[in-house]
Amino acid sequence: MAGTDSSKQIELKPTPAVILCEPQLGENIGTAARAMANFGLWDLRIVNPRDGWPSERARGAASKADHVIDRVQVFDRVEDAISDLSLVYATTARSRDMFKPVIGPDEAANHMVPHIASGQKAGILFGRERWGLNNEEVALCDSIVTLPVEPAFASLNIAQAVLVLAYEWRRALNGAEDLPFTGDVGEAAPREQLVGLYEHLEEALDRSNYFKVADKRPSMVNNIRSMLGRAKFNVQEVRTFRGIIAALDRRHERPNLHREQQKQQKKDAE
Amino acid sequence: MAGTDSSKQIELKPTPAVILCEPQLGENIGTAARAMANFGLWDLRIVNPRDGWPSERARGAASKADHVIDRVQVFDRVEDAISDLSLVYATTARSRDMFKPVIGPDEAANHMVPHIASGQKAGILFGRERWGLNNEEVALCDSIVTLPVEPAFASLNIAQAVLVLAYEWRRALNGAEDLPFTGDVGEAAPREQLVGLYEHLEEALDRSNYFKVADKRPSMVNNIRSMLGRAKFNVQEVRTFRGIIAALDRRHERPNLHREQQKQQKKDAE
Repeated sequence: MAGTDSSKQIELKPTPAVILCEPQLGENIGTAARAMANFGLWDLRIVNPRDGWPSERARGAASKADHVIDRVQVFDRVEDAISDLSLVYATTARSRDMFKPVIGPDEAANHMVPHIASGQKAGILFGRERWGLNNEEVALCDSIVTLPVEPAFASLNIAQAVLVLAYEWRRALNGAEDLPFTGDVGEAAPREQLVGLYEHLEEALDRSNYFKVADKRPSMVNNIRSMLGRAKFNVQEVRTFRGIIAALDRRHERPNLHREQQKQQKKDAE
Repeated sequence: MAGTDSSKQIELKPTPAVILCEPQLGENIGTAARAMANFGLWDLRIVNPRDGWPSERARGAASKADHVIDRVQVFDRVEDAISDLSLVYATTARSRDMFKPVIGPDEAANHMVPHIASGQKAGILFGRERWGLNNEEVALCDSIVTLPVEPAFASLNIAQAVLVLAYEWRRALNGAEDLPFTGDVGEAAPREQLVGLYEHLEEALDRSNYFKVADKRPSMVNNIRSMLGRAKFNVQEVRTFRGIIAALDRRHERPNLHREQQKQQKKDAE
């Protein structure tokens, strides 16, 4: 699939567990697994899945996240699914009438990173397709996590909620340096090269009578230099731009070049 | 759907446009629309959709994000789709051989917020299902945005990429105060109430001969106070806990309470 680097082994690092409480559709277990895999999560636990386990629908929907599907653990009770975790979040879109802190996915991830780095385990509960988690399950957890959705239209499915939490985990873990590739804009060219380019351009413009009023030339030059300077041309780009100026300039010296070329072609054709 | 507050109008605030380049499946247009709607985005533009427009599949997959589907604009060329935007990002999972900065979704959102707040427009390009954006489309954009996925397993689909960008937009826009509901843990009880609770507990423990060694009582009391203190009971919880202590304490005074109750029930039955 686009973006996958098959040469890289899938490493199973310490990451939060994802616990699905009574998932109804095998397909949703699979899409959750796939969402997890994108961000390096692999510990998927399911409590009392309606259609049992294993599930070919789940494996199919996981779209090659086999390393997650193969490790799925099944439990009868949510208490057992979270027994080894010392930090557990309950993901829900509905407020609950209990004294429980409510945080966003970013804050949850910011807490889980040091918790897991210290050797402890953490996990996130997700509820049933139709009605999410029940109050007993929420009460078992340390805090509620909810996504900052538009109140007039909140319709995230399980895999989407898992995706956002998994994304935030990875972001909190690795920070800004974690993109799969970086951009190269090259180093900005030394000032000497830039000034050389500017003077080249300004001389060509002089020859073209661009600066019609002598008094205005200095400020026009400054404007041109300022606007080109913001592009932060690198060395290669300076060369490119100088080539552009040169081509336009030379053509200006031979305004009939196109007509000359056509005449020559006619001659050659005779 | 769980979490939607139907009483709230869907407000169309200035938000980034989402541009899908040659989407192949109407269903994916719909799921992208739905992902957008969750985080308040509504400006969806499609370039040369393979199966044309309108699309019943798209509307179905949008799952009631009609306010987005109804506003979809269709273009023949990507240049036209982005003509009014002054900040455009290209979302791609593959690095490109061109001098183009590469940033993550959070950074993109952090740039788009002030840009749009100043009255300008921004947008994000997403490519075809199978092979994303072509180089010409990327070259038109200001920067590349890529998601920090696990290199060994990168398989985000269009709607998922849209979801993460939309989530980051909302997060950057509204910050930590934007959750649809907040938790209420109540105010921590005043110290006087806590100390009253501790003394109540310690007296009950004294009566139960809990502190077997007098020398150790002070440090044991400190440990108990420290561990209960971390719970930061609020006023209601202090009352609850005192009720717990009282119930256990009273039962201790009437160890045969259960037997007495059974005897009374037999009497009543006769």
